[in-house]
Amino acid sequence: MTDEAAEPGSLNPVELRAWRGLIEITPLLRQRLDQLLMADSGLSGSDYPVLVTLHERGERTVRSTELADLIGWEQSRLSHHLARMERRGLIRRSRHQADNRVAEVHLTDEGRAAFLRAAKGHSRAVRTHFADVLTVPQLEALAEIMEALKCHLDSSG
Amino acid sequence: MTDEAAEPGSLNPVELRAWRGLIEITPLLRQRLDQLLMADSGLSGSDYPVLVTLHERGERTVRSTELADLIGWEQSRLSHHLARMERRGLIRRSRHQADNRVAEVHLTDEGRAAFLRAAKGHSRAVRTHFADVLTVPQLEALAEIMEALKCHLDSSG
Repeated sequence: MTDEAAEPGSLNPVELRAWRGLIEITPLLRQRLDQLLMADSGLSGSDYPVLVTLHERGERTVRSTELADLIGWEQSRLSHHLARMERRGLIRRSRHQADNRVAEVHLTDEGRAAFLRAAKGHSRAVRTHFADVLTVPQLEALAEIMEALKCHLDSSG
Repeated sequence: MTDEAAEPGSLNPVELRAWRGLIEITPLLRQRLDQLLMADSGLSGSDYPVLVTLHERGERTVRSTELADLIGWEQSRLSHHLARMERRGLIRRSRHQADNRVAEVHLTDEGRAAFLRAAKGHSRAVRTHFADVLTVPQLEALAEIMEALKCHLDSSG
């Protein structure tokens, strides 16, 4: 990286370590947790955020467009995934009574039970492979770092 | 999360903020940087790590299996992507002289030029949307956090 380091705007060693660490390690950690989730519960890493989000809404339905926003997926990716989850009985889709163009998503009893069964093991895995690996100041720093990055992304959208 | 918070092994609010931040924001940041890279250079976020890794090797070839390891991809995903990159003239694949089963990957002159053209804009984008958003202590903390997580993943593999 010697030639690049001389350029204005290029990244210094700490910036590069932080950036590469974030971009390279996060997917590996995610992959490990997804494998553990699947082995433990049969749910995929894509099922989980849908189930968490619907579970947090309690009995209420969520519009498909809002769900895509909350999870940060493209609507088309979410629609395909919801179709698969519906076939497995985890969620149910319907049309909004007043506006037929609006798709709504409901968590089924089966979906709720699957989520609750999976959540304990998943929390334990996040503890083992993430929370217990870091110190409390590191966890606090990481939460603030990710919030700063999110805030910048939202404001520069 | 009230019922979960009471359980041993469940995550406290700081742990949950850090975990969700990491898992939810990192892909959004990655997506933004990939969009900028594509608009600026025509290279995808999957081309880039392949080109960086080969560029860092200078004139030497890299075994396909080693490349997969370095980038953290499954071999099959890498093979498919390398086939597309080869059709675009960015890399060239060949068989190892002594062992025909070993696939080797070379960066073409065209691939090197494309990488060098893209790298300046990409560094600027990483600066704008990542490095300049954080303080130096935050960058140092993040580098250490990601190294601790990587070290744990490697040792618990």
